[in-house]
Amino acid sequence: MERVDLIVRGDSVIPMEGSHSVIPDGAVAVKGSKIAGVGTYGEISKKFESDNVIAGEGRVVLPGLINAHTHAAMVYMRGLADDLPLKVWLEEHIWPAENRWLAPEFIADAVELAVAEMLKAGITTYNDMYFYEIVGADVAKRLGMRAVLGVGVIDMPTKTTAGADECLERAERFIKKWRGDELITPAVAPHSSYSCSPDTLSKSKALAEKYGVHLHTHLCETEGEVEEVKKKHGKTPVIFLDEEGFLGENVLAAHCVWVTEEEIEILARRKVGVAHCVESNLKLASGIAPLVEMLDAGVKVGFGTDGAASNNDLNIMSEMSTAAKLHKAVTRDPTALNAHDALQMATRWGAEAIGMGALTGSLEEGKAADIISIDIEKPHLSPQYNIFSHMVYAARASDVDTVVVNGRVVVSGGKLLSADEDEILLKARKWGEKIRAVEQGQAAS
Amino acid sequence: MERVDLIVRGDSVIPMEGSHSVIPDGAVAVKGSKIAGVGTYGEISKKFESDNVIAGEGRVVLPGLINAHTHAAMVYMRGLADDLPLKVWLEEHIWPAENRWLAPEFIADAVELAVAEMLKAGITTYNDMYFYEIVGADVAKRLGMRAVLGVGVIDMPTKTTAGADECLERAERFIKKWRGDELITPAVAPHSSYSCSPDTLSKSKALAEKYGVHLHTHLCETEGEVEEVKKKHGKTPVIFLDEEGFLGENVLAAHCVWVTEEEIEILARRKVGVAHCVESNLKLASGIAPLVEMLDAGVKVGFGTDGAASNNDLNIMSEMSTAAKLHKAVTRDPTALNAHDALQMATRWGAEAIGMGALTGSLEEGKAADIISIDIEKPHLSPQYNIFSHMVYAARASDVDTVVVNGRVVVSGGKLLSADEDEILLKARKWGEKIRAVEQGQAAS
Repeated sequence: MERVDLIVRGDSVIPMEGSHSVIPDGAVAVKGSKIAGVGTYGEISKKFESDNVIAGEGRVVLPGLINAHTHAAMVYMRGLADDLPLKVWLEEHIWPAENRWLAPEFIADAVELAVAEMLKAGITTYNDMYFYEIVGADVAKRLGMRAVLGVGVIDMPTKTTAGADECLERAERFIKKWRGDELITPAVAPHSSYSCSPDTLSKSKALAEKYGVHLHTHLCETEGEVEEVKKKHGKTPVIFLDEEGFLGENVLAAHCVWVTEEEIEILARRKVGVAHCVESNLKLASGIAPLVEMLDAGVKVGFGTDGAASNNDLNIMSEMSTAAKLHKAVTRDPTALNAHDALQMATRWGAEAIGMGALTGSLEEGKAADIISIDIEKPHLSPQYNIFSHMVYAARASDVDTVVVNGRVVVSGGKLLSADEDEILLKARKWGEKIRAVEQGQAAS
Repeated sequence: MERVDLIVRGDSVIPMEGSHSVIPDGAVAVKGSKIAGVGTYGEISKKFESDNVIAGEGRVVLPGLINAHTHAAMVYMRGLADDLPLKVWLEEHIWPAENRWLAPEFIADAVELAVAEMLKAGITTYNDMYFYEIVGADVAKRLGMRAVLGVGVIDMPTKTTAGADECLERAERFIKKWRGDELITPAVAPHSSYSCSPDTLSKSKALAEKYGVHLHTHLCETEGEVEEVKKKHGKTPVIFLDEEGFLGENVLAAHCVWVTEEEIEILARRKVGVAHCVESNLKLASGIAPLVEMLDAGVKVGFGTDGAASNNDLNIMSEMSTAAKLHKAVTRDPTALNAHDALQMATRWGAEAIGMGALTGSLEEGKAADIISIDIEKPHLSPQYNIFSHMVYAARASDVDTVVVNGRVVVSGGKLLSADEDEILLKARKWGEKIRAVEQGQAAS
């Protein structure tokens, strides 16, 4: 009998390792930061014993959810400006607000709120691109969240950098500091094909390859962006990036709303990962990505929430539910994006898309212990016929009961254990009051 | 100083009586089943006193949400068959299951689950069309839910009726029994323009007018249905119903996905209410209703969940959020269906669409005390800049803290007070096991 640190039980355990299988009365054994075994409770209890067993009655156990594209710190701009034309939203609200507020203390407090929201919603890994990732990394680590943090690279000067070279130096320092960390994975995040020159893209790629880290970029989010790239480079963004030698399996491309059939083939052939940010794309009226076509072509696609200023929450269960319904109507096929595939996107495929497939995204012996447990003893989850369907079409982020990241229990009974939630809310309220006074005062003038 | 039975306080009170106004530090005074006053807490506490004051810190107070179209008892078929072609779903799963299981005991237990789910999600009125409304009425009333219950009328024989005349007799008995009740409002529900003959439609209309009750029907849900009516009657469904003299302000039409511009004009001119069932329409791949065009034409539209077999929950907050995002992308206009209008649909407009606008749907003196309070002290609702945006884009059904229907507190601290939730879940589990054994056994054979 092997002693382990934790056993997580569930009426159903869904390992998401490729098959449709559900393990009834299942359990996951955790030793240190790793999964030591997955099976029926009968099997697990013959091999492992632990003083710490999380009960499984009325619970479904899944791998932690993957948020494949976000800007975590933007939670502090949640609802600051909505229902506006994209240009007004960005140029008159979001950019000026960023310019005024972005600073290490803002990022530290905002990322803490974002991580609290995500952990409570069953997200155990997020893939970020924003400013001051060096600050966000400490926060994510402290709260016990797994994060892939992409240091932003952009040609135009920003509040914090004079140009791309400074961004790249910063990215290299960040990579050197964090590579090898158990929870924080550094990445390089050239902003997009319209805001980065061929030279910047190529230097970003070289930097990523030098250290074996992932690239994270925005791609074909809006029709206007495609027009801009066509005007500048004479070709559409995916073809442009491919000809520049940028695309490869170490690239995560967020959005991919306006990709042609030819471009989908390229994404598949180059093994590029895609983050489908369905709610953000709907809310900003950017369009509806050809998700079913991408999946059919074999592109690796996960779900991304995008930033909370355009969504307005960090909730992969809701992205999954919206996408699984929407693409049925869009394709006029009620069998499109079935519940099992939607759940794959939220877990294993999402992990693969962001380059974390070997470590997380499914419950398998040897993988990191990133595990969530959902309370299904609720009116809206009764009765129970098909657990995949319930997880995708009826479960809510608030049904998440227990969250384990890298072997550490960070949420239990729906409560955050790794930080003081009241204090996080208090800080958010104080920042909100300050920001509101300035932004809404200015907006009104 | 007038003594009242209850005062519900909120950091923000949103009365939804036409303007965009939010009352900061507001309160609603309740006397018996009615609202006695709405204003700032300062104003209310000068006029009213009560031993029962519900605290308002971190709370937003709204009128109860309106579910303008559902088949409540279908919760017992939630997730029984998903991701299937419509014909297979209906003909091989839902209809056979209905045929096997529909009986008074099934309806009583299923409606109890549905009402529990809806109350906990802040729904205080639902507009139903199904079998055995006579059983559902007792359950809804016992749990303290307001319901408009439409007795189904259909030409073809069903398990419980030989034809339309028997349905109409049953409807008349139901109306006589329940008219004048404070919570239960009877209605007549001819199923649709393809399943009811002109004679049945005209008799339904006459019956509704005899007693001054509402009509509830399905309209233009699928493209196939439009083709069927065109073939049978040589015109599209709305024009057919209009020429039959069926349409009027006492009609609630569910779905209206496939309506032409001319038909939208007719719906507006006849003051027909429409239930927009966006999630069901997406999931069944029926299509996307021209909601913005209907609203622009002046049609009264609310949200409906449809039955849980096709949704898969009874959650108006989620319908509201999905619709407000979706229609931005569909119209390519990020200002379409703004948060305030989405919240109007979920409350006042929904109440008007189902003929209950004089009684509920807004917080106004003299209206029924149908009030909900949302807990916004949560990470996903922080910080706070615009409360409408938060309610539509970020709040979840699980954030509902308190629900008052007709002056009775039926949910408090998110817990159902008017019935034993554990017992409801136990019954659902038992029915689920029985149904699964038969249906999934049969489906597998």
